[in-house]
Amino acid sequence: MDYQNAFEAAVRRVKAEGRYRVFADLLRRKGEFPVARWRAPDGQVKDVTVWCSNDYLGMGQLPCVVESMKKAIDDVGSGAGGTRNISGTTHYHVELERSLADLHDKEAALLFTSGYIANEATLSTLGKILPGLIIFSDELNHASMIAGVNGARCEKHVWRHNDVAHLEELLAAAPKDAPKLIAFESVYSMDGDIGPIKAVCDLADTYNALTYIDEVHAVGLYGLRGGGIAEREGLMHRIDIIEGTLGKAYGVMGGYVAANEIVIDAIRSLASGFIFTTALPPALAAGARASVEYLKSAHELREKHQERAATLKLRLAEAGFPVMPSVTHIVPVQVGDPVLCKRMTDMLLDDHGIYVQPINYPTVPKGTERLRLTPTPLHTDAMFDALIEALRDVWQRASQQDLAVKG
Amino acid sequence: MDYQNAFEAAVRRVKAEGRYRVFADLLRRKGEFPVARWRAPDGQVKDVTVWCSNDYLGMGQLPCVVESMKKAIDDVGSGAGGTRNISGTTHYHVELERSLADLHDKEAALLFTSGYIANEATLSTLGKILPGLIIFSDELNHASMIAGVNGARCEKHVWRHNDVAHLEELLAAAPKDAPKLIAFESVYSMDGDIGPIKAVCDLADTYNALTYIDEVHAVGLYGLRGGGIAEREGLMHRIDIIEGTLGKAYGVMGGYVAANEIVIDAIRSLASGFIFTTALPPALAAGARASVEYLKSAHELREKHQERAATLKLRLAEAGFPVMPSVTHIVPVQVGDPVLCKRMTDMLLDDHGIYVQPINYPTVPKGTERLRLTPTPLHTDAMFDALIEALRDVWQRASQQDLAVKG
Ligand SMILES: Cc1ncc(COP(=O)(O)O)c(C=O)c1O
Ligand SMILES: Cc1ncc(COP(=O)(O)O)c(C=O)c1O
Repeated sequence: MDYQNAFEAAVRRVKAEGRYRVFADLLRRKGEFPVARWRAPDGQVKDVTVWCSNDYLGMGQLPCVVESMKKAIDDVGSGAGGTRNISGTTHYHVELERSLADLHDKEAALLFTSGYIANEATLSTLGKILPGLIIFSDELNHASMIAGVNGARCEKHVWRHNDVAHLEELLAAAPKDAPKLIAFESVYSMDGDIGPIKAVCDLADTYNALTYIDEVHAVGLYGLRGGGIAEREGLMHRIDIIEGTLGKAYGVMGGYVAANEIVIDAIRSLASGFIFTTALPPALAAGARASVEYLKSAHELREKHQERAATLKLRLAEAGFPVMPSVTHIVPVQVGDPVLCKRMTDMLLDDHGIYVQPINYPTVPKGTERLRLTPTPLHTDAMFDALIEALRDVWQRASQQDLAVKG
Repeated sequence: MDYQNAFEAAVRRVKAEGRYRVFADLLRRKGEFPVARWRAPDGQVKDVTVWCSNDYLGMGQLPCVVESMKKAIDDVGSGAGGTRNISGTTHYHVELERSLADLHDKEAALLFTSGYIANEATLSTLGKILPGLIIFSDELNHASMIAGVNGARCEKHVWRHNDVAHLEELLAAAPKDAPKLIAFESVYSMDGDIGPIKAVCDLADTYNALTYIDEVHAVGLYGLRGGGIAEREGLMHRIDIIEGTLGKAYGVMGGYVAANEIVIDAIRSLASGFIFTTALPPALAAGARASVEYLKSAHELREKHQERAATLKLRLAEAGFPVMPSVTHIVPVQVGDPVLCKRMTDMLLDDHGIYVQPINYPTVPKGTERLRLTPTPLHTDAMFDALIEALRDVWQRASQQDLAVKG
């Protein structure tokens, strides 16, 4: 067995599939988001405009968020110093869990170190709590949900994306008395489409299934208080378990689930990924809580966000770029070729100071490689102008190079 | 299917097994660690001495750590705003990974959001990278390693704790050419014993196996620069993958693996739990780096830590308490009964202002329920006196109550 060779082969395969990642080394400028300093591979540092952040509202620089974090650090120090059970629970954690339960109008909420681990730990634990569970999972569910569904080690059925007829077929075919769980997302982050929440809840009623929704790309952004798409559609009470993150619209880090008391208590008591890990630092809990509470009443920020996204879509379409259909704040522009996609984003960064990461297979299907733009309320009209001008330039140059190479 | 009932039954089972957890609501006082404010269930707040923190050196309040965090927040804001690949890599992350590679004298290191996810993601990904892999796992390995081994979906063999003869038996029985990985810990956190690193490395050479060590309870604490037990024993270069946490001795949060470049690049490119999650906030990377660098040269702090642990063991033994054998900084005192153990810790908290969490089954085997004490360099002789006096009191009262109840 030649291990060196095996690891080299693994990396070679990743490269051959066009999905070898080179991370951009960035430093945002607090107060000037979406502007950041980018350190080029040669060590030179220059200012760039970030167009692909999931800090969708720029909350990461909001004074009330950063000051809460600093205050908590001054009060209690840097880390939690233990798991939640062994000296790691602070009053900041307790209060944040209350804020999150209130956000979703649920009896309780449970914090995890990330949205990833919230999905993985919760879904895999539900498999332990409900023997014989059958999980019905949307085919485009996030990697963390797939990890959780696999971890549950139970029967699973994958339904075609957003296809409730297919979901119903699968539900109808399953034993009537078996415990069932339907797992899906509200906002799908690569296309910006939305899951059929009401139809799923109706099916869940008919077939006596639990519902589990990932609102990671929606919390803070939709609904009157930021409760997500389910809040906007008046459906939060019909979802059994709502999962969210504190690392995207809320601008900090961490994940959670909200549900009724007994569900939360069972997960809290049994989920390995919750129990056997150091708790979030108190400062993150403090910052996240400030952000969640702020966004409960900052509806104008959400409106501004939607306006920016709608305007960008319109302007890109007018300029002739292939904007993909999206009913949310996510603005995907189809390129359709991984090499072209990467070349364009390199040119944007090097020549125009515009940072957007190429989205290639396997994150999206082959042939749908894209730029995924996430305009925030802080992206100005002037930034829109600069983006469109830059896109015109790189679109042309990158395609010409492409022809030159192919021809 | 009655879901409510199923969740209630799950919680009832946890309670029946004596492992239902009630979290203590604490707030440390920066600058006064190990003193913290404890909020009793009735809302009253009182000062307590924490005896069970994994912030083993009190780094969570060290000025250089907390100031680095606050400076980073002032510089770039609260969160990373994206996954490592999509706008979430900052120069703080890059520098921390360099510090960690240097700590373990490896070519590279890779940051994760926690030690839990570092273990789980890395081990499960090795199963993908090395088809036909066989993992040899110590029976007392941590839950996060078990999750990773299960996630690898490969053949596994569990060797009896620290029993290298058994490990060799299992290795010898496996096909000669199959890729093999031996996974174990350096410091086992509940007993304070140490894995047989040299013997494991010798076997790994003989049977051409990779070695994976969890140094979560040792990094920062052992070795001339805090590289862990493997550093202390001059064996870091013989371990292929070293895993550690930034949430215990380093006082912040996060996890990592260190290894040679190609191994890290393969894991970086393929581990779902690394790729599909928001990066650590820059402030945590900054604080952790300050802590790691500080402890590379603060050897006197490590010596003081060892002195405190040795002194406490001695004093407890002299006072007649059943201190369990431990060759590290962990000081377990056997109680041997879950109800007694919980009652004693309640009395310590309520009547003596001493906070130590009971450690019961399934964290430790039945009959070995214990108090797990973690003295830090900041625990004074006066605190030792108070602890021993309090233990004398509760040991007697709790046992008497026990007799009264049983009799
Ligand atoms: C749909 C979805 N769920 C969960 C996650 C994980 O959340 P977190 O970044 O907090 O780990 C992500 C992205 O990271 C996501 O896109
Ligand atoms: C041996 C061991 N490995 C890994 C972990 C997980 O590390 P972290 O707390 O950083 O998630 C822990 C404890 O939490 C542990 O005790």
